[in-house]
Amino acid sequence: MRKKGNGKGPPIEQAAGNGILNRRLFLEGVLFSAAAGSAGAAASVARAEPLSVPQSMKEPGAALSAYGQPSRFESKVVRNVPPPPNPATVGIGTARTPLQLLNGTITPNGLHFDRSHSGTPDIDPDQHRLLIHGLVKRPLVFTLDALSRYPMESRITFIECAGNSGALYSAQAQPGNAQAIHGLLSCAEWTGVRLSTLLDEAGVEPSAQWVVAEGADAASMSRSIPLAKCMDDALVCLYQNGERVRPSNGYPIRLLLPGFEGNTNVKWLRRLKLTAAPVMAKDETSKYTVLLQDGKAWQFVFPMEVKSIITHPSPGLALKGAGFYEISGLAWSGKGRIRQVEVSADAGKSWAPAALQEPVLPKALTRFRAAWQWDGGPAVLQSRATDETGMVQPTRAQFVAERGLRGQYHYNAVASWRIDDKGEASNAFA
Amino acid sequence: MRKKGNGKGPPIEQAAGNGILNRRLFLEGVLFSAAAGSAGAAASVARAEPLSVPQSMKEPGAALSAYGQPSRFESKVVRNVPPPPNPATVGIGTARTPLQLLNGTITPNGLHFDRSHSGTPDIDPDQHRLLIHGLVKRPLVFTLDALSRYPMESRITFIECAGNSGALYSAQAQPGNAQAIHGLLSCAEWTGVRLSTLLDEAGVEPSAQWVVAEGADAASMSRSIPLAKCMDDALVCLYQNGERVRPSNGYPIRLLLPGFEGNTNVKWLRRLKLTAAPVMAKDETSKYTVLLQDGKAWQFVFPMEVKSIITHPSPGLALKGAGFYEISGLAWSGKGRIRQVEVSADAGKSWAPAALQEPVLPKALTRFRAAWQWDGGPAVLQSRATDETGMVQPTRAQFVAERGLRGQYHYNAVASWRIDDKGEASNAFA
Repeated sequence: MRKKGNGKGPPIEQAAGNGILNRRLFLEGVLFSAAAGSAGAAASVARAEPLSVPQSMKEPGAALSAYGQPSRFESKVVRNVPPPPNPATVGIGTARTPLQLLNGTITPNGLHFDRSHSGTPDIDPDQHRLLIHGLVKRPLVFTLDALSRYPMESRITFIECAGNSGALYSAQAQPGNAQAIHGLLSCAEWTGVRLSTLLDEAGVEPSAQWVVAEGADAASMSRSIPLAKCMDDALVCLYQNGERVRPSNGYPIRLLLPGFEGNTNVKWLRRLKLTAAPVMAKDETSKYTVLLQDGKAWQFVFPMEVKSIITHPSPGLALKGAGFYEISGLAWSGKGRIRQVEVSADAGKSWAPAALQEPVLPKALTRFRAAWQWDGGPAVLQSRATDETGMVQPTRAQFVAERGLRGQYHYNAVASWRIDDKGEASNAFA
Repeated sequence: MRKKGNGKGPPIEQAAGNGILNRRLFLEGVLFSAAAGSAGAAASVARAEPLSVPQSMKEPGAALSAYGQPSRFESKVVRNVPPPPNPATVGIGTARTPLQLLNGTITPNGLHFDRSHSGTPDIDPDQHRLLIHGLVKRPLVFTLDALSRYPMESRITFIECAGNSGALYSAQAQPGNAQAIHGLLSCAEWTGVRLSTLLDEAGVEPSAQWVVAEGADAASMSRSIPLAKCMDDALVCLYQNGERVRPSNGYPIRLLLPGFEGNTNVKWLRRLKLTAAPVMAKDETSKYTVLLQDGKAWQFVFPMEVKSIITHPSPGLALKGAGFYEISGLAWSGKGRIRQVEVSADAGKSWAPAALQEPVLPKALTRFRAAWQWDGGPAVLQSRATDETGMVQPTRAQFVAERGLRGQYHYNAVASWRIDDKGEASNAFA
C-alpha cells in the first residue's frame, strides 16, 4: 500500500482504496498530525492569538436546576416525527433518533426512538398492574411495588424497529439522511426483573410454549413470543438509563427482549398470557411479517440480523474541504457481539477493518471508527459488519436476490453514502 | 450456615449474619420463590383476578414528540439543590443526583450532578474556542468544528465531586438520604477527542510537566493537572450519553480525567496552559486540599479512592414488612476496576460477597446486588468495596484514625444505614 506522511513522524499506510487509513491510527496512538499529513485536521485550527474574554466570564451564570435540559443551541437535535397519514391520529407513527447528530453508543432518553400504534398513554403507576396467566399453576397480578421487590438486572441493549431502513426497499435510492432512513434504532441501559423469575413464581405448565404480551395502550399492542426467549434473557424493565422508563418508551414497565425486533419489546406491559401456540394477533398478521418476492412471507422472524451504518459523514454533514476525516458509525446484531466492521470508500471494491470501541457488548450498539484521508473527489462510503456467529451483512444485490423488494421489514444490507466533489453526502445504491 | 427454603425448591444458605443470602441467587438463577422462602416477595403479589380495562386502552394516547420527558408521575425524581448561602448567588453550589430513586449505572443527563462555582454559563458553540499554549512548540486555537474533525473515543466513567459524602466528617451521624450525603456522584458515557492527540498537535516542550485547565465561567475555574494524566486517558468531551454535553455539565466542551476528583474535570473548557509547575490556582489552595487532623494538608490528591454505597434500601425507601429484599448499590474506584463488593447486615460483624453487574468497567460505577431476608428486626447495612489494585474501603474508625474529622474531601470509609423495626433507614456511624 502507498505510504502517507509529511516527514514529522512515522508514515502510515493506506489500508484500502480512496484514502482509508490503517486503524492503528486509533489503536496505537500514532502521532495524529503525522498520520493525517499536511492536509489533515491540523490545518483547520488557527494559530493562537490572545483569546478575548467571553461574556460568560464577566457575569454569574444561571441557577442550579432540578432537572437539566440540553443547550438552547442544540434545539435542532430532536427526534424526527413524520406527519401522520391521518391528521387526527397524531400518536400513530414514529419519532426517529437523530443518529447523525449523536456520538458514542448510548441514546439519551429524550431521543430514544418511538414507534407507537395508538399514541402514548398516560399511566398512573400506582394503578398499573401486570397479570401473568394462561398456562401457569398460579396466575399472579403484580403491582409496581411488588415488582420492585424482586432481584434486578441491568444490560446495555439496542432496540431496532423491524421496519428500520425500510425505505431502502425502494427500487431507486430516495433522498434521506441517517435519521430518516435508519433512525428507528437506539441503545440504552435497561434495568428490570428477569421475566424468568416472574414466570417461575407463577409456575409454567409443561404445555406452555408461547407467551402473548399485551400493552396497555389503545391499540392493545400484542405479540406472541417463544417461551424459550422469555426464560432466557427477557427483562420486565422499570428503568432506562438509570431513571424510570419514559412514557414514550413504555412507562411504567416495558418488556425487553434483547436482540428481538423492536415491536416485540412491548411497551406499557400489562399482560403476559402463556399459551400452547402463537395467537396470531393483529400486530403479527397485518404487520411484522417479512414479505418475499413470490408473495410468501416469513412469520416470527425475531432476531434483528447483523447490520451497520455510517453516521459520520452522512447526509447533512457536509465535508469541509479535502483532508482527514473520521468515518464513524454503529454496528449491531440481535444474535450477539459484533466481531468485525470493515469500511470502504470505493463502493466496496476494497475494504479495511475499522477500530471497535470497547467494551463490545452482546446485542448492543458498537461504535466503529476509521481514518479517512479524503482527496476531494467522489467517493462511496460503506460499512460491513460481521457478528460473533459469523453472519456477515449481505450486499444490497445479495439481499435483493434473496428477499426481493416487496418487504418492509428486517432490511440489513450494506448501506452506501455517496460523497460528491463538494463534500455533500447522499443516500445511494451501490 | 443455616439453610433457608420452603420445600418448593433447593434450599439456599445464609451467607452472612442477619439474613444475607448467598449471591448464587443472582448468579445461578436459583428458583426465586424457593430461595426467598414463604415470606419472600411473592407474598406481596396478588392472585389474579380479571384485570379491569384501564382508561389508557379506551382512548388514543398523546402525540409523538420531538424530545421526550419523564412521566408526570416521576416529578419527584429530581436533583436536590440545597439553598445557596447567599440568596444572590443562585448558581453557586450543588445539584445532587437522586441515587436512591435510580437503578443501573448510567445517570440520565438531566440528573447528572452539578457543582458550579459561579453558575451555568450560556455559551454559543460557534463563538467558543479552546486555546492550548504555554510550553508548546505551536500554540493552537481550536473551534468546535476543528475539534470535531479529530478521532474520537467513548468511555463510560463516573465523576465524583471531591466533597462527596463530606457530611460524614461530622462527629455524630446527621440525618440525610443517599442523595443528600452521596449524590455528588454520577456516571455517563463520555465521547471526545483524546487530549494527547491535541497536545501532540501543539508539540509539548520537554520542560512541560503540568497543564493548567481553565473554564469559561465567571469563576474561571482553574486546576493544575499532571501532564502525565493529560497524555494518558484524558478526553476533551463533546458528548455525554450520546448527545452534546449539557450546559450544567460543561457545554460545549468538558475536560474528562477518568477517576480524578470531579473538580479537575473542568467544565466549559477554554484554555490549557502547559507549565513546569502547578500554578496554585485559587481553586486548589482555598479548596480541594485534604486537611488532616494536625492541620497539615494533602495537596493534589487526584484519584478518588475505592468506595461503595448502598442505594436500596436507604433513607426514604421504607421496607414494607419482613421478607425478601434486594440490597443494591454502587461501587467505584478512580484507580481501575472493582474486584469485589461485600455486604453486611450486622454492622460489619459478618460479610458476604455481592453479585457484580457485568460488564465491570474501569473507573465506572459498578452496580452490586445481594439478597437479604429481613426478619423485621433492627439491622445495620454496610458495603465494602475492593478495587483491582487491592485497595479496600477503610472502616470509619480506620479512616478517622488516619485523617481525622477536619477535612471536607475524599471521604471513602464504609457507610452505614441503620434499619429500625419499622423498616425505616437512617444514616448511622457503626
